[in-house]
Amino acid sequence: MLRVAVVGATGVVGQQFLVGLENHPWFSVTKLAASSRSAGKSYRESITDKGGALRWWASAEPPAAYMDLFVEDASLLDPSSVDLIFSAVEADAAKELEPVYAAKVPVISTASAFRYESDTPILVGGVNMDHAVMLAVQQRRRGWKGFVAPKPNCTTAGLVISLKPLLDHFGVKTVLMTSMQAISGAGRTPGVPGLDMIDNLIPYIPGEEAKAEAEPRKILGAVADGEILPAGFAVSATCTRVPVIDGHTVIVSLSTEKPCTPDEAAAVMMQHGKDCPETKLPSAPAEFIHVTQDPFRPQPRLDRDRGDGMTTTVGRLRVDPVLPNGLKYICLSHNTKLGAAKGAMFTAEYLVKEYLRWV
Amino acid sequence: MLRVAVVGATGVVGQQFLVGLENHPWFSVTKLAASSRSAGKSYRESITDKGGALRWWASAEPPAAYMDLFVEDASLLDPSSVDLIFSAVEADAAKELEPVYAAKVPVISTASAFRYESDTPILVGGVNMDHAVMLAVQQRRRGWKGFVAPKPNCTTAGLVISLKPLLDHFGVKTVLMTSMQAISGAGRTPGVPGLDMIDNLIPYIPGEEAKAEAEPRKILGAVADGEILPAGFAVSATCTRVPVIDGHTVIVSLSTEKPCTPDEAAAVMMQHGKDCPETKLPSAPAEFIHVTQDPFRPQPRLDRDRGDGMTTTVGRLRVDPVLPNGLKYICLSHNTKLGAAKGAMFTAEYLVKEYLRWV
Amino acid sequence: MLRVAVVGATGVVGQQFLVGLENHPWFSVTKLAASSRSAGKSYRESITDKGGALRWWASAEPPAAYMDLFVEDASLLDPSSVDLIFSAVEADAAKELEPVYAAKVPVISTASAFRYESDTPILVGGVNMDHAVMLAVQQRRRGWKGFVAPKPNCTTAGLVISLKPLLDHFGVKTVLMTSMQAISGAGRTPGVPGLDMIDNLIPYIPGEEAKAEAEPRKILGAVADGEILPAGFAVSATCTRVPVIDGHTVIVSLSTEKPCTPDEAAAVMMQHGKDCPETKLPSAPAEFIHVTQDPFRPQPRLDRDRGDGMTTTVGRLRVDPVLPNGLKYICLSHNTKLGAAKGAMFTAEYLVKEYLRWV
Amino acid sequence: MLRVAVVGATGVVGQQFLVGLENHPWFSVTKLAASSRSAGKSYRESITDKGGALRWWASAEPPAAYMDLFVEDASLLDPSSVDLIFSAVEADAAKELEPVYAAKVPVISTASAFRYESDTPILVGGVNMDHAVMLAVQQRRRGWKGFVAPKPNCTTAGLVISLKPLLDHFGVKTVLMTSMQAISGAGRTPGVPGLDMIDNLIPYIPGEEAKAEAEPRKILGAVADGEILPAGFAVSATCTRVPVIDGHTVIVSLSTEKPCTPDEAAAVMMQHGKDCPETKLPSAPAEFIHVTQDPFRPQPRLDRDRGDGMTTTVGRLRVDPVLPNGLKYICLSHNTKLGAAKGAMFTAEYLVKEYLRWV
Repeated sequence: MLRVAVVGATGVVGQQFLVGLENHPWFSVTKLAASSRSAGKSYRESITDKGGALRWWASAEPPAAYMDLFVEDASLLDPSSVDLIFSAVEADAAKELEPVYAAKVPVISTASAFRYESDTPILVGGVNMDHAVMLAVQQRRRGWKGFVAPKPNCTTAGLVISLKPLLDHFGVKTVLMTSMQAISGAGRTPGVPGLDMIDNLIPYIPGEEAKAEAEPRKILGAVADGEILPAGFAVSATCTRVPVIDGHTVIVSLSTEKPCTPDEAAAVMMQHGKDCPETKLPSAPAEFIHVTQDPFRPQPRLDRDRGDGMTTTVGRLRVDPVLPNGLKYICLSHNTKLGAAKGAMFTAEYLVKEYLRWV
Repeated sequence: MLRVAVVGATGVVGQQFLVGLENHPWFSVTKLAASSRSAGKSYRESITDKGGALRWWASAEPPAAYMDLFVEDASLLDPSSVDLIFSAVEADAAKELEPVYAAKVPVISTASAFRYESDTPILVGGVNMDHAVMLAVQQRRRGWKGFVAPKPNCTTAGLVISLKPLLDHFGVKTVLMTSMQAISGAGRTPGVPGLDMIDNLIPYIPGEEAKAEAEPRKILGAVADGEILPAGFAVSATCTRVPVIDGHTVIVSLSTEKPCTPDEAAAVMMQHGKDCPETKLPSAPAEFIHVTQDPFRPQPRLDRDRGDGMTTTVGRLRVDPVLPNGLKYICLSHNTKLGAAKGAMFTAEYLVKEYLRWV
Repeated sequence: MLRVAVVGATGVVGQQFLVGLENHPWFSVTKLAASSRSAGKSYRESITDKGGALRWWASAEPPAAYMDLFVEDASLLDPSSVDLIFSAVEADAAKELEPVYAAKVPVISTASAFRYESDTPILVGGVNMDHAVMLAVQQRRRGWKGFVAPKPNCTTAGLVISLKPLLDHFGVKTVLMTSMQAISGAGRTPGVPGLDMIDNLIPYIPGEEAKAEAEPRKILGAVADGEILPAGFAVSATCTRVPVIDGHTVIVSLSTEKPCTPDEAAAVMMQHGKDCPETKLPSAPAEFIHVTQDPFRPQPRLDRDRGDGMTTTVGRLRVDPVLPNGLKYICLSHNTKLGAAKGAMFTAEYLVKEYLRWV
Repeated sequence: MLRVAVVGATGVVGQQFLVGLENHPWFSVTKLAASSRSAGKSYRESITDKGGALRWWASAEPPAAYMDLFVEDASLLDPSSVDLIFSAVEADAAKELEPVYAAKVPVISTASAFRYESDTPILVGGVNMDHAVMLAVQQRRRGWKGFVAPKPNCTTAGLVISLKPLLDHFGVKTVLMTSMQAISGAGRTPGVPGLDMIDNLIPYIPGEEAKAEAEPRKILGAVADGEILPAGFAVSATCTRVPVIDGHTVIVSLSTEKPCTPDEAAAVMMQHGKDCPETKLPSAPAEFIHVTQDPFRPQPRLDRDRGDGMTTTVGRLRVDPVLPNGLKYICLSHNTKLGAAKGAMFTAEYLVKEYLRWV
């Protein structure tokens, strides 16, 4: 068993890490860290408010095993005391903390702090694990013994999984996407106000569209000579917030290089990833992509938990009548499972087994 | 005052007609008609269920003036007894009833039955009132004394208003749109189930995308030699249902013929329709298009009632990075005001004042 | 393994039975029945609509094992071909079908058809399984070889579980309750309209309050001399519908016979049912009642799935300042698990193991 | 015209004051004040965030007339510069600011800071305007030239209006109430999180129940010898939050002193307030209480705006079967109109016209 620390353990994503790691076959949580405000308390105390209420937001119950663990100050955590760190802190904190940790041990991060660094891959299971070789470049360039491996933005995660088989088989020239994002992605404090989400939607999520336009090109790019060459397509994104708890829906229209019928697209999607080494990892879903023929699907509430939240569901595959070699579809993925803690755990599993060969 | 009948008076749209017509300066409701099930009752009785509850769905109270009117069987209504008919029945009923009425008097319809007939214009205030000349073609070809003038699909209404100034000033080559539609558009019985609209969205509305792809081309086309020549652009539509009561949000990406910056687009939109004759009609809004600079707008709950539901709000105008001369924006319009009864009343006002010159 | 039939297998509750029975250790589904409309089709066909969409509403996926079973016409089903029948039909159909089945085999029903018959107990696991002796009375009086054992109304289920330990230890004189009920309780077609459940609540559910006022007295009554003597307290109920998918919340104020502090109430609730024979049945939860100290709980989304939907969560136990020996609390239970199919299965388990001694 | 200041002008309630005062016949807003953070800016600037978005939450548009007014620091506002002050600040700020203002001029407050002071009445239009005589006691005791007149808690407002005619005609002994409160009552920052309000309700609102149990007794009490004697009934309250934007629904069960049938209750409610001097004030609704016979009403979205948000709607009047002389009903009132700014303006109108005789 590898000893792991969860940093940012009291937040929404940190809690999801704890739920996911509770019975993990390879990882054993031995350290919890958070901001100085929580430090020095038991985990139970750190998530209990003055009125005695538990500030716990995962749908599963808080794992009893961690309730009495002592929460350390993240800025004082000794990275050498663990084998691996899961970082679930905000981008600003990540910029300071993660390099300190990475100097000693591997850091798998849900923060965006390092995503756009040229020596840092954004790893997505079933999509671009070959980019892991960039971690050696990162280590060399920065003199780290460990590394920082960030997961993508939650909206990007499902999109790139659906694009990957199309890119491989038909090439992709342009992508237009509109997201209808769940509110859990915005965290809890303050999160999305209830007033915005009753009889309403919000047509803008600050910073989200830039990420959704940049990350797919990097993730689906090629690694050569110690560099990531972005994929040759461009993305146009509109990101909106809708009254859904979990599950980001993405409406996609795209141009492929070679002609591709909806049936051909369905076929390569259903086949996707069947042979990649990730399929044997503990967090791997039975299917990376589930293609539904039901025109009323995917729906967030009904489809987000497929494959325990790790399967991307694609539906409404059809010709786009205005784009050259036009194809359109709707994809749905679980933003706080595939798109956050569980996706990061999946990456960690790959790295320790296939890249570091530790297990 | 012109005598008008409202057919389908007990339904959601029929009720909106009654609210809108209550204090109309030109129109006086003298007849109400509905299916045989309601016929022979007072209007009050016809909208009261067995348990004594009022089946009334408009946000304004039921107009007292109409509560004691007698409801006639729509199939037995004598069209000659009124000057004008507002038809708010379903498409199937419209196909049978509207020709019978139109043989005698003008019919303004919210149904889709005649929208795709080659001799029938789909009229939208502020957009294509010059297409009214097609009504003479329709009359001639069918031997009618009246005519059938249908309004567009509720999703199309706001979209074509926002496209019109762009088409006029810059030309439009291709349009990709994703709608996030309110549930009032689906009517009441059965309407959209509550189970579908809590923590969820539905990615498909049967029949809607075909309408949204076809109608804008017809509405924004040109009339020549007694024919409507569709506009030269193509539309790709994805139509979804979201948990919003009223107000359809449409995400638009388009290619213009000539380059057009977001600022130029905003300028022609804000200027749109200032000089057209419709601006003096009773139902005309102060602005056809309101352009907002707030990136968090338009929002359905906050913007749908602008101009008493007759103004289309456009926001988030920006460059689309993947389309040639690409522009993107979000537009919002009130589906049961602009997009239904009130939009039809606006058309009626134009026809009786500018086309028929009756008032 | 006992052979069981699910009647009404295509409806919301019927589907929940199938999910619950899929891996049941004692029950094997060998027959499916539904209305004549579905008869003669495979189960898959019977829940597939014209457009190819699956009409499936349970959150778990449809069990593959049943998809190719043939659906019989419920009115033609031979009850002798199975050992036990789960009936999930509407009250009207139940009134006709259940006696025919019960003439031959035991019928466990979610319908209300027999609930108010004097010879019929309303059985609730952990509350009144001793009332099962009434089934012999029912058999004798009606000449049946089997019986009909109905479950309570979904609102009543959680309420009576929370009342039982109070009644046993302190006596109960009067109960005032306000329910805030989830929409899944209303079924699907037509179910609760989406228009009613956005930015709204509905203050009335036809027929519900009469059930909520009558059933607890019968369920918590005593059996003596072949009769059920209703409990000596009275109930005042107000039942409302709120925008929640699953989980009925009930606000309770009551007078006990003997004084009872909130702490004493919590203690007897937490202890409740620990020794009853039901605790060893397959569907029994670890706790019948979970008492929370968090003042913000119970919440439907966070608490309904406790004990896989079979645990009732009670919170906010405090003194009611206006009632003599006044106590108030809020209880929450899963209306489509405890309150429907799974609650009925739990009763079936008791009956076959403890009453019929078949397993 | 009286010169008025709105203090706390940038908040949710402050904005409602501005909307309500825009065209007021007696009041002219000449000063705006807020915290030091907003001071020194134009009002437009003070409600515009860094990204250019307007932080405006009232459903009506921001009144153009006030956009260029200068916002003063509330702690530096010279009360003598106006005739009257509307205070919409939080309780803590109110405790400090309101006495300073009241030393010079009348202050009408939506804050709770002074509600429970023995020399301070909680005034509600149509209910207890005779309590205004206590303001002289307050002035004398505190040496103020002005006074502080607080409005009640938003949940209390509708409740006391519905109780008043029952109290007057039949006497009231005990009241049990459960509220289902809208989220606008919680303000905006942070307000109720969206995560709490999708597929959920929150069974607790800190501090609310104590207010709901105390305020009705004070408001419906009698003034004698410079003191307010609380009414002789007791209240038991449970306050919950539901996914509704505006409109608090209150489920009421009560015991009257003298027997009172539902019809008698309806009669005195419908008659209520017809003769009181408030009915002629600008903000008075046509009916204080609207009694509906529709069992499905009141509903928040359909009934909250009756009487422009100043009418309380009562429905489902029926016998409560467990209380002596038991009656139950459901009442609904608009929490941010009647229950906040507009209710306070109504009180102000009474005070300047009937009590101060200034207009």
